[in-house]
Amino acid sequence: MQKSSHIAVAGAGLVGTLLAIYLKKIGHKVQVFDKSEDIRKIEFSGKSINLAISTRGWKTLDDIGIGDRIRELAIPMNKRAIHKPDRSVTHQRYGINGESIYSISRGGLNRVMVDIAEEFGVEFKFEHKIWDIDLSKPSLFVGESERGDWEEVQFGKIFGADGAFSKIRARMQKQNRFNYSQYFLPLGYKELRIPANADGTHKIDKNSFHIWPHGDFMLIALPNEDGSFTCTLFMPFEGEISFENINTEEKLQKFFDTYFPDTRELIPNLLIDYFKNPTSSLVTTKCFPWTYQDKVALLGDAAHAMVPFYGQGMNAGFEDITEMYRQIKKYGDDWLAVFQNYEAIRQPNAEAISELSFRNFVEMSTKTADEMFLLQKKIEAKFTTLYPDRWLPLYDRVTFSLRPYTEALAIGDMQRNVMNEIMAIPDIKQKWDTEEIMQKMYQLTEK
Amino acid sequence: MQKSSHIAVAGAGLVGTLLAIYLKKIGHKVQVFDKSEDIRKIEFSGKSINLAISTRGWKTLDDIGIGDRIRELAIPMNKRAIHKPDRSVTHQRYGINGESIYSISRGGLNRVMVDIAEEFGVEFKFEHKIWDIDLSKPSLFVGESERGDWEEVQFGKIFGADGAFSKIRARMQKQNRFNYSQYFLPLGYKELRIPANADGTHKIDKNSFHIWPHGDFMLIALPNEDGSFTCTLFMPFEGEISFENINTEEKLQKFFDTYFPDTRELIPNLLIDYFKNPTSSLVTTKCFPWTYQDKVALLGDAAHAMVPFYGQGMNAGFEDITEMYRQIKKYGDDWLAVFQNYEAIRQPNAEAISELSFRNFVEMSTKTADEMFLLQKKIEAKFTTLYPDRWLPLYDRVTFSLRPYTEALAIGDMQRNVMNEIMAIPDIKQKWDTEEIMQKMYQLTEK
Repeated sequence: MQKSSHIAVAGAGLVGTLLAIYLKKIGHKVQVFDKSEDIRKIEFSGKSINLAISTRGWKTLDDIGIGDRIRELAIPMNKRAIHKPDRSVTHQRYGINGESIYSISRGGLNRVMVDIAEEFGVEFKFEHKIWDIDLSKPSLFVGESERGDWEEVQFGKIFGADGAFSKIRARMQKQNRFNYSQYFLPLGYKELRIPANADGTHKIDKNSFHIWPHGDFMLIALPNEDGSFTCTLFMPFEGEISFENINTEEKLQKFFDTYFPDTRELIPNLLIDYFKNPTSSLVTTKCFPWTYQDKVALLGDAAHAMVPFYGQGMNAGFEDITEMYRQIKKYGDDWLAVFQNYEAIRQPNAEAISELSFRNFVEMSTKTADEMFLLQKKIEAKFTTLYPDRWLPLYDRVTFSLRPYTEALAIGDMQRNVMNEIMAIPDIKQKWDTEEIMQKMYQLTEK
Repeated sequence: MQKSSHIAVAGAGLVGTLLAIYLKKIGHKVQVFDKSEDIRKIEFSGKSINLAISTRGWKTLDDIGIGDRIRELAIPMNKRAIHKPDRSVTHQRYGINGESIYSISRGGLNRVMVDIAEEFGVEFKFEHKIWDIDLSKPSLFVGESERGDWEEVQFGKIFGADGAFSKIRARMQKQNRFNYSQYFLPLGYKELRIPANADGTHKIDKNSFHIWPHGDFMLIALPNEDGSFTCTLFMPFEGEISFENINTEEKLQKFFDTYFPDTRELIPNLLIDYFKNPTSSLVTTKCFPWTYQDKVALLGDAAHAMVPFYGQGMNAGFEDITEMYRQIKKYGDDWLAVFQNYEAIRQPNAEAISELSFRNFVEMSTKTADEMFLLQKKIEAKFTTLYPDRWLPLYDRVTFSLRPYTEALAIGDMQRNVMNEIMAIPDIKQKWDTEEIMQKMYQLTEK
């Protein structure tokens, strides 16, 4: 398919490691550089958000034949469990066909994937910090310290999969006509933990994505294999209810008693976790171009870091690999065509899922607790059942299909307009499942 | 007013030099670092756009008592001269009260200002490249080469006035929660030149800002003191009419014959200039915050590079200095208050003038040639004369007033809505100056 080349991948995270597997399988010599210690040897940092693998992610894993090994580590979640301050819990099915997203620990997944990559013959250079890059050769400058001796290593291609604060992209940013933005939400997050029962079972429903929605802030919990849940508290950095203000044990306890009363028994180490774990920030980065000539390309967060509220960050990064591989199969050694088609197809899609992720915070933290939103979901579900060709809900199109994100964004906007019209109908609460409403939706979705 | 401090200014451009004069006058020890040779010793690069000093710029120069020395170098332009392909020329007065903007050579102005700064006692460190900065001390790392020995120099404060690709800002960008964007227009520019007549006089009207508007591309010319004009051709990088496509002498000549026929005698060195001078790009950068604790602050293009179509880039940078000085007078040694108030006031204003500059390309390159646009200007002028309290045209508010740019943007949007309504009136061409129209505008501008 391609002449063998010596390829460097910057970043031994999920996207870098999976990309390395693909490139190795094609027949390239692949070295992965990462500034950190071997992830298989280190403690996790207390700042992970658990991942949810969905259809796009599985495709990239399955196409290279490693999906089943990952499935062993993943827990299916087929619904949201919405927790209210009155301790009631309601459920919202995810897929209209009962599909699940799959909870997995970022660190656990990363470790297994490095193992698999080594089995494929990928070479890992951990604790090799990249200090600079010469795009035109291309070459990497690696060394132990910024002012010490650097070694310049030349490659056939360099792939930047080194995350939201990519060193490769930072070098590209210095080029003329390179567009770039980084935007931080005024919201931060902190990891908390629901431990397993003594017998290793889960304290709350294992097959749910748990949410405690409260508008400006929310708590979520995703299941782990060992019976625990990884929780994430999203909250403004500053303001009345904020990480800045909730700064004493007393305030913290009062805050949880008020808004998350049913978690008090679930999170025994709340005080320790909250004050020990870091408060992390949430960044959206965008850039263009994603490639330099036929020499350098960005994938995953290095090209398009997004906020985590659609659970698509890793899935979108994996889909970058699928697209890169598709172009490699099509154009072979014409790497310029590979790179140009790759970025032309993926950049608008990254832009679209980034926008959807941004918007989805409001859905998760506000609307999931809203009666009219739930009614809307019910109307959509009924209409989809009656006329499956007419309506695939936005969430399903993003999460359980391989259709482009750009299409999801555009059709989602159309659907929102339709639903605004439907929800404005007087007495919609009473007659939502009547033939009249279904026919109205049918008309509104006429091409 | 303040205890004397040792202050570094990064960048010996217009904003850096004028800021240094202010800081020296207050009583600080001021060193200005610049990576380039002393501007008084070097040839200009053929990539300058002439500057137009307007009211905000003059205020900052006059407040420190150097305005009159600059006026000697500046040529007033009280109107636009619009050149059409049929060689006709029409004129549009700039200010409703006959005000002028002042053409000046960037390089020439910069040289004089460095002279003046030295007279004030500012010390310039030319050919001192800043390789890194420690925000927390604050200190600069300067040296001859990136891999050579760097000297760390500590200061009381560091001011970054080092332009659109600021090294100081690049270091701030690595901080958590630092928002940043850089966006390049698909449009580039190239400098050309109309030489003086043999007797040193100007070949075309000296007191006009000359425009050859053509929608996607345009040519402008600003007068110099020596009788020449500095011309700038703005044109897309790629596409049918573009720098990429107009790549032979034949195509260039045909292009100018078609669109700028009256310039063929004016620009004798067209072929040489076009192929010798670089094609430069146009960037908009935005960031926040602009300061780091009470230690580091950004001003001018380092904080807010904008496209040049409102002629406000330097004026906005000078106004940053005016605001910084106002806060220094107010808060004295409480530098944290100085910096926080400075950025809180200036950042929204920079955002506003950046947006207006972006929009103004369309006005300059398309609307100035449009009959209805000229009619609209006439209606506005008449209404302003009748009801000066009711209407200050957007251009005047931006260019000839000291009112905040944010106000100009907001009121400008309101005025656009009013004018859209007025211009939609049937027979407006016939009855534009009637009492009926003036009364209609009066109603529409009622609070």
